Amino acid sequence: MTERVKHLGEFALIDRLIAALPAEVRSNDRVCGAGDDCAWWQNSGDRTVVTADTMVAGVHFRLDWTDWRSLGHKLLAVNLSDLASMGAAPKLAIVTLALTGDELVADLEDMYRGMGELAAIYGVVIAGGDIVRTQGPQVFNLTAIGEVGVGQSLMTRAAARSGDAILVSGTLGASAAGMRLLAEPNPEAKSADLLIADHLRPSPRISLGRLLASSGVRCCMDLSDGLAGDLPKLLTASGVGAIVDTTLIPVAPAVHANFPDLWLDLAIRGGEDYELLFTVSPDQVAALQVAARDVGATLTPIGQITVEPGLIWLDELHHPVRLDVGAWDHFEHSND
Amino acid sequence: MTERVKHLGEFALIDRLIAALPAEVRSNDRVCGAGDDCAWWQNSGDRTVVTADTMVAGVHFRLDWTDWRSLGHKLLAVNLSDLASMGAAPKLAIVTLALTGDELVADLEDMYRGMGELAAIYGVVIAGGDIVRTQGPQVFNLTAIGEVGVGQSLMTRAAARSGDAILVSGTLGASAAGMRLLAEPNPEAKSADLLIADHLRPSPRISLGRLLASSGVRCCMDLSDGLAGDLPKLLTASGVGAIVDTTLIPVAPAVHANFPDLWLDLAIRGGEDYELLFTVSPDQVAALQVAARDVGATLTPIGQITVEPGLIWLDELHHPVRLDVGAWDHFEHSND
Repeated sequence: MTERVKHLGEFALIDRLIAALPAEVRSNDRVCGAGDDCAWWQNSGDRTVVTADTMVAGVHFRLDWTDWRSLGHKLLAVNLSDLASMGAAPKLAIVTLALTGDELVADLEDMYRGMGELAAIYGVVIAGGDIVRTQGPQVFNLTAIGEVGVGQSLMTRAAARSGDAILVSGTLGASAAGMRLLAEPNPEAKSADLLIADHLRPSPRISLGRLLASSGVRCCMDLSDGLAGDLPKLLTASGVGAIVDTTLIPVAPAVHANFPDLWLDLAIRGGEDYELLFTVSPDQVAALQVAARDVGATLTPIGQITVEPGLIWLDELHHPVRLDVGAWDHFEHSND
Repeated sequence: MTERVKHLGEFALIDRLIAALPAEVRSNDRVCGAGDDCAWWQNSGDRTVVTADTMVAGVHFRLDWTDWRSLGHKLLAVNLSDLASMGAAPKLAIVTLALTGDELVADLEDMYRGMGELAAIYGVVIAGGDIVRTQGPQVFNLTAIGEVGVGQSLMTRAAARSGDAILVSGTLGASAAGMRLLAEPNPEAKSADLLIADHLRPSPRISLGRLLASSGVRCCMDLSDGLAGDLPKLLTASGVGAIVDTTLIPVAPAVHANFPDLWLDLAIRGGEDYELLFTVSPDQVAALQVAARDVGATLTPIGQITVEPGLIWLDELHHPVRLDVGAWDHFEHSND
């Protein structure tokens, strides 16, 4: 009876709360909400796709690390990344700000400028929202809404099939490397500004998501909690396992160069890559790689889906290595 | 350059932030966000209607006043009320919780039960969301999504026309009276439990909103900031004025009885009534009043829309009275 949120962890808590709802208000065949990056809702023609992400001052961002313009960019970007992972075209965003009142108006205008610049690229309308007062740290919530047109498929985490190739877009680890350089500045670091920009201003893979969905990819998610945190969610949702060759994981050269001992950890556990992780039949990989050039994306096969559950990582000698994996969890489990 | 949020106030701040966006990401003919209770988006058939409301511990609720089940009910209800005011049918809700980690899991389960009970009445699916950690007061955000079907009209604040009758549903002031009884308990108060329930567990007028929209009502909003706060927004959006007869404002008998000197103030300035305020041609009033009986609603004409801008309140002698009006603003303007 005295079980507290911090004892349970974020993902177990979500399961418990959904279980507290009457069955008829949970996901059904017209509305689906649990387990994917977005919820969706089948209207008369299109499917409407919805996602919400929240950033709390001191937890998800530090005002001594980021400028406000980048913060606005990121608040929208992390939500657009969720839409991208479903293959949805973004349409509209609603913003809720919980503010202390001491913020400079000019800073918030900068935040909106950063949001607006990214919104303009994808034709997303920023449709107002709600502003409330808080006595604590600022809380910024953005809800993004997109659509998947009639006849288009919607990608989910639950569609991986045994034998599928596992691919990621772009490179991994740069955002985590950038965050580390913010925490421990190193004047000798190479390409530090670019790594930091990867952390503060991630780019959502909207066009790639659309391309994958229209090319027949059915299983996709975005990498927000790191490959080692997110891939197990995809495997669990699909009821399959995987073998990943760690030597194939694409890592930016600057991550290698600046963190010779830590690059693999940053690449699989760092998080906030906002690249797409997806699976597809091996005979489609080459054609997808060519097609992805049109949206400026590189696609790298890193492993294979297996019938047997579990996740095996292979080292450079193709020996299985043990990696302690786990998703980023907003609540560290504790027994206080 | 040192202008702060608290100097500006909520509504002026929203205007400034929207102005900081590039023009192409603001409202357009397929997506509309500014000025109404909800944003909407025209998809291939239906219109999708979206709203978000946030409740901050210590600002919008007090855990020593409310139980968690009522809190969940209210978090959903205030959003469904916004959908009701546009005439939309609610479909889906996304919940974001910013938690400290010290909350009891059982309390949050109660909150979801309260949300689920109300969701079940209207067939709303609670489609997950996001849980994050905060070091400050809890912040609960709910985004509700509804639809207005092909050929159905969508009610807005901007459609009042000179000569229209102004009506409100139900009675006003009960929620504010209930909050006052929570702040200053009075063992001799009459119907205190019901007034308190009106404050802690408001009922959204979903069925009435659908009825009004399908009956041809074009101008509607919900009363969250009190008649004196909300009616001016409707008048400004429509470019008209109004005369309101204060003796016609429907006030619950228990509000009169418990607050003989304060009832009018509670009824027009108290806020959180979550009744509907709308305008319609006078020759439609009687038929609407009869039709509204089917959804258990009473509709009361309280005044008339005028060509001349401004809002005139008439007292019992039909003399204009001066009322200091203003919306509830989350930031009191200050010159600190």
